Amino acid sequence: MQIIESISDMRQWSDRHWHGLRRIVLVPTMGFLHEGHLSLMRLARLRGDLVVASIFVNPAQFSPGEDFAGYPRDFERDRRLLEAEQVDVLFHPSEQQIFPAGAQTFVEVEKLSLPLCGAARPGHFRGVATVVVKLFSIVRPQVAIFGEKDYQQLQVIRRMVRDLSLAVEIVGHPIVREPDGLALSSRNAYLNAAERTAALCLSRALCIAERLVKRGEVKATVIIDRVRAELNNQPLATVDYVKVCDAEFLEDIDEVNEPTLLALAVRIGKARLIDNRMLKV
Amino acid sequence: MQIIESISDMRQWSDRHWHGLRRIVLVPTMGFLHEGHLSLMRLARLRGDLVVASIFVNPAQFSPGEDFAGYPRDFERDRRLLEAEQVDVLFHPSEQQIFPAGAQTFVEVEKLSLPLCGAARPGHFRGVATVVVKLFSIVRPQVAIFGEKDYQQLQVIRRMVRDLSLAVEIVGHPIVREPDGLALSSRNAYLNAAERTAALCLSRALCIAERLVKRGEVKATVIIDRVRAELNNQPLATVDYVKVCDAEFLEDIDEVNEPTLLALAVRIGKARLIDNRMLKV
Repeated sequence: MQIIESISDMRQWSDRHWHGLRRIVLVPTMGFLHEGHLSLMRLARLRGDLVVASIFVNPAQFSPGEDFAGYPRDFERDRRLLEAEQVDVLFHPSEQQIFPAGAQTFVEVEKLSLPLCGAARPGHFRGVATVVVKLFSIVRPQVAIFGEKDYQQLQVIRRMVRDLSLAVEIVGHPIVREPDGLALSSRNAYLNAAERTAALCLSRALCIAERLVKRGEVKATVIIDRVRAELNNQPLATVDYVKVCDAEFLEDIDEVNEPTLLALAVRIGKARLIDNRMLKV
Repeated sequence: MQIIESISDMRQWSDRHWHGLRRIVLVPTMGFLHEGHLSLMRLARLRGDLVVASIFVNPAQFSPGEDFAGYPRDFERDRRLLEAEQVDVLFHPSEQQIFPAGAQTFVEVEKLSLPLCGAARPGHFRGVATVVVKLFSIVRPQVAIFGEKDYQQLQVIRRMVRDLSLAVEIVGHPIVREPDGLALSSRNAYLNAAERTAALCLSRALCIAERLVKRGEVKATVIIDRVRAELNNQPLATVDYVKVCDAEFLEDIDEVNEPTLLALAVRIGKARLIDNRMLKV
Protein backbone atom coordinates (compact mmCIF):
# COMPACT_ATOMS: atom_id res chain seq x y z
CA MET A 1 0.00 0.00 0.00
CA GLN A 2 1.27 3.38 -1.03
CA ILE A 3 0.92 6.26 1.44
CA ILE A 4 0.52 9.63 -0.26
CA GLU A 5 0.57 12.86 1.71
CA SER A 6 0.71 15.61 -0.90
CA ILE A 7 -2.00 16.78 -3.28
CA SER A 8 0.38 16.86 -6.24
CA ASP A 9 1.60 13.28 -5.68
CA MET A 10 -1.98 12.10 -5.30
CA ARG A 11 -3.03 13.83 -8.49
CA GLN A 12 -0.06 12.43 -10.39
CA TRP A 13 -0.94 8.91 -9.25
CA SER A 14 -4.56 9.42 -10.25
CA ASP A 15 -3.72 10.90 -13.65
CA ARG A 16 -1.48 7.96 -14.44
CA HIS A 17 -4.17 5.41 -13.66
CA TRP A 18 -6.91 7.46 -15.24
CA HIS A 19 -5.02 7.42 -18.51
CA GLY A 20 -4.56 3.69 -18.01
CA LEU A 21 -8.35 3.35 -17.92
CA ARG A 22 -8.24 1.94 -14.40
CA ARG A 23 -11.36 2.46 -12.33
CA ILE A 24 -10.55 4.33 -9.11
CA VAL A 25 -12.79 4.01 -6.04
CA LEU A 26 -12.43 6.45 -3.16
CA VAL A 27 -13.47 5.84 0.44
CA PRO A 28 -13.17 9.11 2.36
CA THR A 29 -12.78 8.67 6.15
CA MET A 30 -11.73 10.61 9.22
CA GLY A 31 -9.67 7.64 10.38
CA PHE A 32 -9.88 5.70 13.67
CA LEU A 33 -11.21 2.96 11.49
CA HIS A 34 -13.69 0.32 12.56
CA GLU A 35 -15.33 -2.62 10.88
CA GLY A 36 -17.83 -0.26 9.24
CA HIS A 37 -15.03 1.50 7.38
CA LEU A 38 -13.44 -1.80 6.46
CA SER A 39 -16.71 -2.98 4.92
CA LEU A 40 -16.62 0.13 2.75
CA MET A 41 -13.11 -0.87 1.62
CA ARG A 42 -14.34 -4.32 0.63
CA LEU A 43 -17.25 -2.86 -1.32
CA ALA A 44 -14.78 -0.47 -2.97
CA ARG A 45 -12.67 -3.42 -4.07
CA LEU A 46 -15.73 -4.94 -5.76
CA ARG A 47 -16.60 -1.70 -7.54
CA GLY A 48 -13.29 -0.83 -9.16
CA ASP A 49 -9.69 -1.65 -9.98
CA LEU A 50 -7.93 0.58 -7.48
CA VAL A 51 -9.00 1.55 -3.98
CA VAL A 52 -7.97 4.83 -2.41
CA ALA A 53 -8.81 5.41 1.26
CA SER A 54 -8.40 8.92 2.56
CA ILE A 55 -7.87 9.81 6.20
CA PHE A 56 -8.45 13.44 7.02
CA VAL A 57 -9.98 14.75 10.22
CA ASN A 58 -11.72 17.67 8.58
CA PRO A 59 -11.73 20.75 10.81
CA ALA A 60 -14.32 22.45 8.58
CA GLN A 61 -17.03 19.96 9.52
CA PHE A 62 -16.72 20.49 13.25
CA SER A 63 -18.77 23.32 14.71
CA PRO A 64 -17.19 25.55 17.36
CA GLY A 65 -17.13 23.71 20.68
CA GLU A 66 -17.29 20.28 19.06
CA ASP A 67 -14.77 17.48 19.47
CA PHE A 68 -12.26 18.31 16.72
CA ALA A 69 -9.20 18.40 19.01
CA GLY A 70 -10.23 15.29 20.92
CA TYR A 71 -11.48 13.30 17.91
CA PRO A 72 -9.87 9.85 18.21
CA ARG A 73 -6.83 9.31 15.99
CA ASP A 74 -4.54 6.31 15.54
CA PHE A 75 -2.74 6.51 12.24
CA GLU A 76 -0.53 3.46 12.75
CA ARG A 77 -3.46 1.22 13.53
CA ASP A 78 -5.44 2.63 10.59
CA ARG A 79 -2.48 2.03 8.29
CA ARG A 80 -2.23 -1.61 9.33
CA LEU A 81 -5.97 -2.17 8.92
CA LEU A 82 -5.99 -0.67 5.43
CA GLU A 83 -2.88 -2.61 4.45
CA ALA A 84 -4.65 -5.80 5.51
CA GLU A 85 -7.62 -4.86 3.31
CA GLN A 86 -5.22 -4.50 0.37
CA VAL A 87 -6.13 -0.89 -0.15
CA ASP A 88 -3.93 0.51 -2.94
CA VAL A 89 -3.38 4.03 -1.68
CA LEU A 90 -3.83 5.69 1.68
CA PHE A 91 -4.19 9.41 1.03
CA HIS A 92 -3.34 11.26 4.22
CA PRO A 93 -3.00 14.98 3.55
CA SER A 94 -2.15 17.54 6.21
CA GLU A 95 -4.62 20.23 7.25
CA GLN A 96 -2.26 22.74 5.65
CA GLN A 97 -2.53 20.89 2.31
CA ILE A 98 -6.32 20.85 2.29
CA PHE A 99 -6.95 24.25 3.89
CA PRO A 100 -3.94 26.45 3.06
CA ALA A 101 -3.79 29.93 4.56
CA GLY A 102 -6.30 32.23 2.88
CA ALA A 103 -8.64 29.42 1.79
CA GLN A 104 -12.12 30.94 1.60
CA THR A 105 -14.10 28.80 -0.83
CA PHE A 106 -17.01 26.74 0.46
CA VAL A 107 -19.54 24.44 -1.13
CA GLU A 108 -23.00 24.57 0.32
CA VAL A 109 -25.96 22.30 -0.32
CA GLU A 110 -28.62 24.58 0.98
CA LYS A 111 -31.91 22.94 1.89
CA LEU A 112 -30.60 19.45 2.64
CA SER A 113 -28.05 20.86 5.09
CA LEU A 114 -30.64 22.49 7.34
CA PRO A 115 -32.69 19.79 9.10
CA LEU A 116 -31.62 16.89 11.34
CA CYS A 117 -27.90 17.12 12.17
CA GLY A 118 -27.65 20.42 10.28
CA ALA A 119 -29.82 22.12 12.90
CA ALA A 120 -27.53 21.11 15.77
CA ARG A 121 -24.27 21.43 13.80
CA PRO A 122 -24.29 24.72 11.86
CA GLY A 123 -21.72 24.66 9.05
CA HIS A 124 -21.18 20.90 9.41
CA PHE A 125 -22.44 19.87 5.97
CA ARG A 126 -20.80 22.87 4.35
CA GLY A 127 -17.53 21.55 5.74
CA VAL A 128 -18.32 18.05 4.51
CA ALA A 129 -19.35 19.17 1.02
CA THR A 130 -16.30 21.41 0.64
CA VAL A 131 -13.78 18.76 1.61
CA VAL A 132 -15.48 16.09 -0.50
CA VAL A 133 -15.28 18.31 -3.60
CA LYS A 134 -11.57 18.78 -2.89
CA LEU A 135 -10.99 15.06 -2.40
CA PHE A 136 -12.88 14.26 -5.61
CA SER A 137 -10.86 16.82 -7.50
CA ILE A 138 -7.55 15.51 -6.16
CA VAL A 139 -8.21 11.76 -6.30
CA ARG A 140 -10.54 11.90 -9.32
CA PRO A 141 -12.42 8.69 -8.48
CA GLN A 142 -15.07 7.19 -10.74
CA VAL A 143 -16.85 5.87 -7.64
CA ALA A 144 -16.95 7.03 -4.01
CA ILE A 145 -18.39 5.07 -1.12
CA PHE A 146 -20.05 6.46 2.01
CA GLY A 147 -21.73 4.75 4.94
CA GLU A 148 -25.46 5.03 5.41
CA LYS A 149 -25.11 5.72 9.13
CA ASP A 150 -24.37 9.29 8.10
CA TYR A 151 -27.50 9.23 5.99
CA GLN A 152 -27.92 12.98 5.71
CA GLN A 153 -24.28 13.32 4.67
CA LEU A 154 -24.87 10.73 1.96
CA GLN A 155 -27.91 12.62 0.66
CA VAL A 156 -26.06 15.96 0.77
CA ILE A 157 -23.24 14.44 -1.26
CA ARG A 158 -25.58 12.80 -3.76
CA ARG A 159 -27.34 16.14 -4.27
CA MET A 160 -24.06 18.01 -4.57
CA VAL A 161 -22.73 15.57 -7.16
CA ARG A 162 -25.89 15.95 -9.22
CA ASP A 163 -26.01 19.74 -8.85
CA LEU A 164 -22.35 20.33 -9.71
CA SER A 165 -22.35 17.65 -12.43
CA LEU A 166 -19.43 15.89 -10.78
CA ALA A 167 -18.41 12.75 -12.65
CA VAL A 168 -18.47 10.46 -9.62
CA GLU A 169 -20.87 7.67 -8.83
CA ILE A 170 -21.90 7.79 -5.17
CA VAL A 171 -22.53 4.44 -3.51
CA GLY A 172 -24.00 3.99 -0.03
CA HIS A 173 -23.11 1.08 2.23
CA PRO A 174 -25.60 -0.26 4.83
CA ILE A 175 -24.94 0.49 8.49
CA VAL A 176 -22.61 -2.00 10.14
CA ARG A 177 -23.54 -2.88 13.72
CA GLU A 178 -22.05 -4.57 16.76
CA PRO A 179 -23.66 -7.94 17.52
CA ASP A 180 -25.87 -6.21 20.13
CA GLY A 181 -27.13 -3.65 17.61
CA LEU A 182 -25.01 -0.56 18.30
CA ALA A 183 -24.11 1.15 15.01
CA LEU A 184 -20.35 1.31 14.57
CA SER A 185 -18.90 4.80 14.99
CA SER A 186 -15.48 6.17 15.80
CA ARG A 187 -17.22 8.20 18.48
CA ASN A 188 -18.26 5.02 20.32
CA ALA A 189 -14.70 5.25 21.71
CA TYR A 190 -15.97 8.09 23.93
CA LEU A 191 -18.37 5.76 25.79
CA ASN A 192 -17.58 4.22 29.18
CA ALA A 193 -19.08 0.84 30.08
CA ALA A 194 -22.35 2.25 31.44
CA GLU A 195 -22.74 4.61 28.50
CA ARG A 196 -21.95 1.78 26.08
CA THR A 197 -24.90 -0.16 27.49
CA ALA A 198 -27.08 2.95 27.48
CA ALA A 199 -26.23 3.52 23.81
CA LEU A 200 -28.24 0.46 22.87
CA CYS A 201 -31.36 2.59 23.30
CA LEU A 202 -30.80 3.97 19.77
CA SER A 203 -30.99 0.71 17.87
CA ARG A 204 -33.66 -0.58 20.26
CA ALA A 205 -35.82 2.47 19.54
CA LEU A 206 -35.38 1.94 15.79
CA CYS A 207 -36.48 -1.70 16.12
CA ILE A 208 -39.55 -0.68 18.12
CA ALA A 209 -40.49 1.80 15.41
CA GLU A 210 -39.96 -0.79 12.73
CA ARG A 211 -42.29 -3.20 14.51
CA LEU A 212 -44.90 -0.47 15.00
CA VAL A 213 -44.90 0.21 11.28
CA LYS A 214 -45.03 -3.50 10.46
CA ARG A 215 -48.12 -3.71 12.63
CA GLY A 216 -49.72 -1.00 10.50
CA GLU A 217 -48.91 2.26 12.27
CA VAL A 218 -48.23 5.02 9.73
CA LYS A 219 -48.68 8.23 11.77
CA ALA A 220 -45.33 9.98 12.24
CA THR A 221 -46.37 11.55 15.56
CA VAL A 222 -47.23 8.15 17.05
CA ILE A 223 -43.93 6.66 15.91
CA ILE A 224 -41.90 9.62 17.12
CA ASP A 225 -43.62 9.64 20.52
CA ARG A 226 -42.93 5.93 20.98
CA VAL A 227 -39.27 6.33 19.97
CA ARG A 228 -38.81 9.34 22.23
CA ALA A 229 -40.37 7.46 25.12
CA GLU A 230 -37.88 4.63 24.62
CA LEU A 231 -34.93 7.01 24.46
CA ASN A 232 -36.10 9.11 27.40
CA ASN A 233 -36.39 5.91 29.37
CA GLN A 234 -32.59 5.79 29.37
CA PRO A 235 -31.33 8.24 32.02
CA LEU A 236 -27.87 8.64 30.41
CA ALA A 237 -29.39 9.63 27.04
CA THR A 238 -30.43 13.12 25.95
CA VAL A 239 -32.40 13.25 22.74
CA ASP A 240 -31.23 15.74 20.13
CA TYR A 241 -33.81 14.82 17.49
CA VAL A 242 -36.15 12.07 16.35
CA LYS A 243 -37.40 12.62 12.81
CA VAL A 244 -39.64 10.82 10.37
CA CYS A 245 -38.92 12.30 6.97
CA ASP A 246 -38.88 11.51 3.29
CA ALA A 247 -35.69 9.76 2.34
CA GLU A 248 -34.62 12.05 -0.49
CA PHE A 249 -35.36 15.61 0.64
CA LEU A 250 -35.34 14.91 4.41
CA GLU A 251 -38.53 16.88 4.87
CA ASP A 252 -40.81 15.98 7.78
CA ILE A 253 -43.77 13.90 6.73
CA ASP A 254 -46.99 13.07 8.55
CA GLU A 255 -47.41 9.51 7.40
CA VAL A 256 -44.99 6.75 6.58
CA ASN A 257 -44.90 5.80 2.93
CA GLU A 258 -41.97 4.55 0.91
CA PRO A 259 -39.23 5.59 1.11
CA THR A 260 -39.40 7.01 4.63
CA LEU A 261 -36.48 7.58 6.95
CA LEU A 262 -36.52 7.43 10.73
CA ALA A 263 -33.43 9.25 11.97
CA LEU A 264 -32.27 10.05 15.47
CA ALA A 265 -29.46 11.76 17.30
CA VAL A 266 -28.81 11.24 21.00
CA ARG A 267 -26.16 12.54 23.37
CA ILE A 268 -24.69 10.01 25.77
CA GLY A 269 -21.81 11.21 27.91
CA LYS A 270 -19.55 13.20 25.61
CA ALA A 271 -20.63 11.28 22.51
CA ARG A 272 -23.29 12.47 20.11
CA LEU A 273 -24.57 9.31 18.43
CA ILE A 274 -26.75 9.03 15.35
CA ASP A 275 -28.61 6.12 13.85
CA ASN A 276 -31.36 5.62 11.31
CA ARG A 277 -33.57 3.11 9.59
CA MET A 278 -35.73 2.99 6.50
CA LEU A 279 -39.34 2.38 7.47
CA LYS A 280 -41.27 0.15 5.11
CA VAL A 281 -45.06 -0.04 5.13
CA MET B 1 -17.28 22.65 -35.22
CA GLN B 2 -19.35 20.33 -33.14
CA ILE B 3 -22.29 21.79 -31.20
CA ILE B 4 -23.03 19.91 -27.99
CA GLU B 5 -26.10 20.67 -25.91
CA SER B 6 -26.24 17.92 -23.31
CA ILE B 7 -24.02 17.37 -20.31
CA SER B 8 -23.64 13.66 -21.01
CA ASP B 9 -22.56 14.21 -24.65
CA MET B 10 -20.09 16.87 -23.52
CA ARG B 11 -18.64 14.58 -20.88
CA GLN B 12 -18.35 11.70 -23.33
CA TRP B 13 -16.48 13.92 -25.79
CA SER B 14 -14.18 15.11 -23.05
CA ASP B 15 -13.50 11.63 -21.68
CA ARG B 16 -12.57 10.40 -25.12
CA HIS B 17 -10.05 13.17 -25.69
CA TRP B 18 -8.77 13.03 -22.12
CA HIS B 19 -7.89 9.40 -22.61
CA GLY B 20 -6.26 10.38 -25.89
CA LEU B 21 -4.00 12.76 -23.93
CA ARG B 22 -5.32 15.76 -25.85
CA ARG B 23 -5.09 19.08 -24.00
CA ILE B 24 -8.54 20.69 -23.71
CA VAL B 25 -8.90 24.45 -23.27
CA LEU B 26 -12.23 25.93 -22.19
CA VAL B 27 -13.41 29.48 -22.81
CA PRO B 28 -16.63 30.07 -20.85
CA THR B 29 -18.81 32.88 -22.21
CA MET B 30 -22.34 34.22 -21.97
CA GLY B 31 -22.43 34.62 -25.76
CA PHE B 32 -23.13 37.76 -27.83
CA LEU B 33 -19.50 37.46 -28.71
CA HIS B 34 -17.21 40.35 -29.53
CA GLU B 35 -13.57 40.68 -30.49
CA GLY B 36 -12.58 40.30 -26.83
CA HIS B 37 -14.09 36.82 -26.72
CA LEU B 38 -12.51 35.93 -30.05
CA SER B 39 -9.08 36.91 -28.70
CA LEU B 40 -9.68 34.43 -25.89
CA MET B 41 -10.40 31.75 -28.50
CA ARG B 42 -7.11 32.49 -30.24
CA LEU B 43 -5.19 32.33 -26.98
CA ALA B 44 -6.99 29.05 -26.23
CA ARG B 45 -5.80 27.66 -29.54
CA LEU B 46 -2.20 28.46 -28.57
CA ARG B 47 -2.57 26.82 -25.16
CA GLY B 48 -3.98 23.43 -26.10
CA ASP B 49 -5.02 20.89 -28.69
CA LEU B 50 -8.77 21.30 -28.53
CA VAL B 51 -10.80 24.44 -27.87
CA VAL B 52 -14.22 24.29 -26.25
CA ALA B 53 -16.25 27.52 -26.08
CA SER B 54 -19.29 27.47 -23.86
CA ILE B 55 -22.25 29.80 -24.25
CA PHE B 56 -24.53 29.94 -21.25
CA VAL B 57 -26.32 33.03 -20.00
CA ASN B 58 -26.09 32.08 -16.36
CA PRO B 59 -29.19 33.11 -14.42
CA ALA B 60 -27.42 32.50 -11.11
CA GLN B 61 -25.01 35.38 -11.64
CA PHE B 62 -27.68 38.00 -12.20
CA SER B 63 -29.04 39.69 -9.09
CA PRO B 64 -32.79 40.32 -8.83
CA GLY B 65 -33.70 43.30 -10.99
CA GLU B 66 -30.66 42.91 -13.23
CA ASP B 67 -30.68 42.41 -16.98
CA PHE B 68 -30.95 38.61 -17.25
CA ALA B 69 -34.06 38.60 -19.46
CA GLY B 70 -32.79 41.41 -21.67
CA TYR B 71 -29.15 40.25 -21.86
CA PRO B 72 -28.21 40.34 -25.55
CA ARG B 73 -28.30 36.95 -27.31
CA ASP B 74 -27.57 35.96 -30.91
CA PHE B 75 -26.74 32.29 -31.12
CA GLU B 76 -26.50 32.11 -34.91
CA ARG B 77 -24.01 34.94 -35.09
CA ASP B 78 -22.00 33.46 -32.19
CA ARG B 79 -21.95 30.10 -33.92
CA ARG B 80 -20.58 31.60 -37.13
CA LEU B 81 -17.92 33.58 -35.27
CA LEU B 82 -16.74 30.50 -33.34
CA GLU B 83 -16.77 28.42 -36.50
CA ALA B 84 -14.53 31.00 -38.16
CA GLU B 85 -12.14 30.79 -35.19
CA GLN B 86 -11.95 27.02 -35.71
CA VAL B 87 -13.24 26.30 -32.25
CA ASP B 88 -13.64 22.53 -31.90
CA VAL B 89 -16.74 22.38 -29.74
CA LEU B 90 -19.44 24.87 -28.89
CA PHE B 91 -21.04 23.71 -25.63
CA HIS B 92 -24.47 25.26 -25.38
CA PRO B 93 -26.43 23.71 -22.55
CA SER B 94 -29.96 24.69 -21.60
CA GLU B 95 -30.77 26.31 -18.27
CA GLN B 96 -32.59 23.09 -17.37
CA GLN B 97 -29.39 21.09 -17.96
CA ILE B 98 -27.25 23.29 -15.75
CA PHE B 99 -29.83 24.11 -13.07
CA PRO B 100 -32.30 21.22 -12.96
CA ALA B 101 -35.28 21.47 -10.64
CA GLY B 102 -34.21 21.08 -7.04
CA ALA B 103 -30.63 22.27 -7.60
CA GLN B 104 -29.46 23.80 -4.33
CA THR B 105 -25.68 23.54 -4.31
CA PHE B 106 -23.62 26.72 -4.46
CA VAL B 107 -19.92 27.48 -4.42
CA GLU B 108 -18.92 30.61 -2.58
CA VAL B 109 -15.57 32.37 -2.46
CA GLU B 110 -16.18 34.41 0.61
CA LYS B 111 -13.92 37.42 1.08
CA LEU B 112 -13.07 38.05 -2.56
CA SER B 113 -16.76 38.15 -3.50
CA LEU B 114 -17.59 41.03 -1.17
CA PRO B 115 -15.91 44.23 -2.41
CA LEU B 116 -16.14 46.04 -5.78
CA CYS B 117 -18.85 44.46 -7.98
CA GLY B 118 -19.77 42.08 -5.16
CA ALA B 119 -21.11 44.99 -3.11
CA ALA B 120 -23.50 46.12 -5.85
CA ARG B 121 -24.34 42.61 -7.11
CA PRO B 122 -25.10 40.34 -4.15
CA GLY B 123 -24.84 36.68 -5.12
CA HIS B 124 -23.17 37.50 -8.42
CA PHE B 125 -19.84 35.78 -7.76
CA ARG B 126 -21.55 32.86 -6.04
CA GLY B 127 -23.43 32.35 -9.30
CA VAL B 128 -20.23 32.66 -11.30
CA ALA B 129 -18.23 30.28 -9.08
CA THR B 130 -21.02 27.69 -9.07
CA VAL B 131 -21.46 27.60 -12.83
CA VAL B 132 -17.71 27.55 -13.46
CA VAL B 133 -17.28 24.51 -11.19
CA LYS B 134 -20.04 22.79 -13.16
CA LEU B 135 -18.49 23.69 -16.51
CA PHE B 136 -15.08 22.47 -15.34
CA SER B 137 -16.59 19.23 -14.15
CA ILE B 138 -18.46 18.65 -17.40
CA VAL B 139 -15.83 19.79 -19.90
CA ARG B 140 -12.82 18.77 -17.78
CA PRO B 141 -10.40 21.26 -19.34
CA GLN B 142 -6.71 21.38 -18.47
CA VAL B 143 -6.77 25.15 -19.09
CA ALA B 144 -9.53 27.77 -18.90
CA ILE B 145 -9.30 31.32 -20.17
CA PHE B 146 -11.02 34.41 -18.78
CA GLY B 147 -10.79 38.07 -19.74
CA GLU B 148 -9.16 40.55 -17.39
CA LYS B 149 -11.95 43.10 -17.85
CA ASP B 150 -13.84 41.03 -15.31
CA TYR B 151 -10.82 41.22 -13.05
CA GLN B 152 -12.61 40.37 -9.82
CA GLN B 153 -14.22 37.37 -11.49
CA LEU B 154 -10.78 36.19 -12.59
CA GLN B 155 -9.43 36.50 -9.04
CA VAL B 156 -12.47 34.74 -7.57
CA ILE B 157 -11.97 31.86 -9.99
CA ARG B 158 -8.23 31.67 -9.36
CA ARG B 159 -8.88 31.52 -5.60
CA MET B 160 -11.63 28.93 -6.03
CA VAL B 161 -9.43 26.70 -8.16
CA ARG B 162 -6.66 26.86 -5.58
CA ASP B 163 -9.03 26.33 -2.64
CA LEU B 164 -10.90 23.39 -4.17
CA SER B 165 -7.72 21.89 -5.67
CA LEU B 166 -9.32 21.89 -9.11
CA ALA B 167 -6.96 20.56 -11.77
CA VAL B 168 -7.38 23.48 -14.16
CA GLU B 169 -4.87 26.15 -15.06
CA ILE B 170 -6.52 29.58 -15.13
CA VAL B 171 -5.19 32.01 -17.73
CA GLY B 172 -6.16 35.68 -17.93
CA HIS B 173 -6.30 37.61 -21.19
CA PRO B 174 -5.66 41.39 -21.31
CA ILE B 175 -8.62 43.71 -21.88
CA VAL B 176 -9.45 44.20 -25.56
CA ARG B 177 -10.52 47.75 -26.45
CA GLU B 178 -12.15 49.64 -29.27
CA PRO B 179 -9.73 51.96 -31.12
CA ASP B 180 -11.03 54.88 -29.02
CA GLY B 181 -10.34 53.06 -25.74
CA LEU B 182 -13.74 51.64 -24.73
CA ALA B 183 -13.30 48.17 -23.24
CA LEU B 184 -15.25 45.60 -25.25
CA SER B 185 -18.33 44.26 -23.48
CA SER B 186 -21.52 42.58 -24.60
CA ARG B 187 -23.31 45.23 -22.55
CA ASN B 188 -21.97 48.00 -24.80
CA ALA B 189 -24.90 46.97 -27.02
CA TYR B 190 -27.16 48.79 -24.54
CA LEU B 191 -25.57 52.18 -25.32
CA ASN B 192 -27.11 54.71 -27.72
CA ALA B 193 -24.82 57.07 -29.63
CA ALA B 194 -24.61 59.73 -26.90
CA GLU B 195 -24.04 57.10 -24.22
CA ARG B 196 -21.40 55.39 -26.35
CA THR B 197 -19.46 58.67 -26.43
CA ALA B 198 -20.03 59.22 -22.73
CA ALA B 199 -18.70 55.71 -22.00
CA LEU B 200 -15.22 56.87 -23.00
CA CYS B 201 -14.98 58.53 -19.59
CA LEU B 202 -14.02 55.13 -18.09
CA SER B 203 -10.90 54.51 -20.11
CA ARG B 204 -10.05 58.23 -20.04
CA ALA B 205 -10.20 58.22 -16.25
CA LEU B 206 -7.94 55.17 -16.12
CA CYS B 207 -5.40 56.92 -18.38
CA ILE B 208 -5.47 60.01 -16.19
CA ALA B 209 -4.78 57.88 -13.12
CA GLU B 210 -1.98 56.09 -14.88
CA ARG B 211 -0.34 59.40 -15.78
CA LEU B 212 -0.77 60.67 -12.21
CA VAL B 213 1.04 57.61 -10.89
CA LYS B 214 3.76 57.91 -13.52
CA ARG B 215 4.32 61.48 -12.30
CA GLY B 216 4.89 60.13 -8.81
CA GLU B 217 1.50 60.26 -7.13
CA VAL B 218 1.01 57.22 -4.84
CA LYS B 219 -1.83 58.33 -2.52
CA ALA B 220 -4.99 56.35 -3.23
CA THR B 221 -7.28 59.18 -2.08
CA VAL B 222 -5.71 61.63 -4.53
CA ILE B 223 -5.99 59.16 -7.41
CA ILE B 224 -9.58 58.23 -6.56
CA ASP B 225 -10.64 61.89 -6.26
CA ARG B 226 -9.13 62.71 -9.64
CA VAL B 227 -10.81 59.68 -11.28
CA ARG B 228 -14.16 60.47 -9.68
CA ALA B 229 -13.89 64.09 -10.85
CA GLU B 230 -13.33 62.90 -14.40
CA LEU B 231 -16.28 60.50 -14.28
CA ASN B 232 -18.58 63.00 -12.57
CA ASN B 233 -17.72 65.45 -15.32
CA GLN B 234 -19.74 63.25 -17.63
CA PRO B 235 -23.44 64.00 -17.05
CA LEU B 236 -24.65 60.65 -18.44
CA ALA B 237 -22.41 58.69 -16.06
CA THR B 238 -23.23 57.62 -12.50
CA VAL B 239 -20.30 56.24 -10.55
CA ASP B 240 -20.87 52.95 -8.75
CA TYR B 241 -17.33 52.59 -7.38
CA VAL B 242 -13.75 53.71 -7.89
CA LYS B 243 -11.29 51.54 -5.99
CA VAL B 244 -7.56 51.37 -5.54
CA CYS B 245 -6.80 47.96 -4.11
CA ASP B 246 -4.19 45.25 -3.96
CA ALA B 247 -4.39 43.05 -7.02
CA GLU B 248 -4.66 39.69 -5.28
CA PHE B 249 -6.99 40.18 -2.31
CA LEU B 250 -8.82 43.26 -3.66
CA GLU B 251 -8.46 45.02 -0.33
CA ASP B 252 -8.39 48.83 -0.30
CA ILE B 253 -4.89 50.22 0.05
CA ASP B 254 -3.68 53.71 0.93
CA GLU B 255 -0.70 53.90 -1.35
CA VAL B 256 0.06 52.49 -4.77
CA ASN B 257 2.70 49.81 -4.77
CA GLU B 258 2.99 46.81 -7.04
CA PRO B 259 0.75 45.14 -7.88
CA THR B 260 -2.07 47.64 -7.45
CA LEU B 261 -5.40 47.62 -9.22
CA LEU B 262 -7.52 50.61 -10.11
CA ALA B 263 -11.04 49.35 -10.78
CA LEU B 264 -14.21 51.22 -11.58
CA ALA B 265 -17.88 50.62 -12.29
CA VAL B 266 -20.11 53.24 -13.87
CA ARG B 267 -23.73 53.24 -14.94
CA ILE B 268 -24.51 54.84 -18.27
CA GLY B 269 -28.07 54.56 -19.50
CA LYS B 270 -29.13 51.01 -18.79
CA ALA B 271 -25.58 49.67 -18.99
CA ARG B 272 -23.39 49.05 -15.98
CA LEU B 273 -19.84 49.22 -17.34
CA ILE B 274 -16.63 48.15 -15.62
CA ASP B 275 -13.01 48.74 -16.47
CA ASN B 276 -9.68 48.46 -14.69
CA ARG B 277 -5.97 49.00 -14.96
CA MET B 278 -2.87 47.88 -13.13
CA LEU B 279 -1.07 50.87 -11.68
CA LYS B 280 2.69 50.70 -11.76
CA VAL B 281 4.88 52.98 -9.67
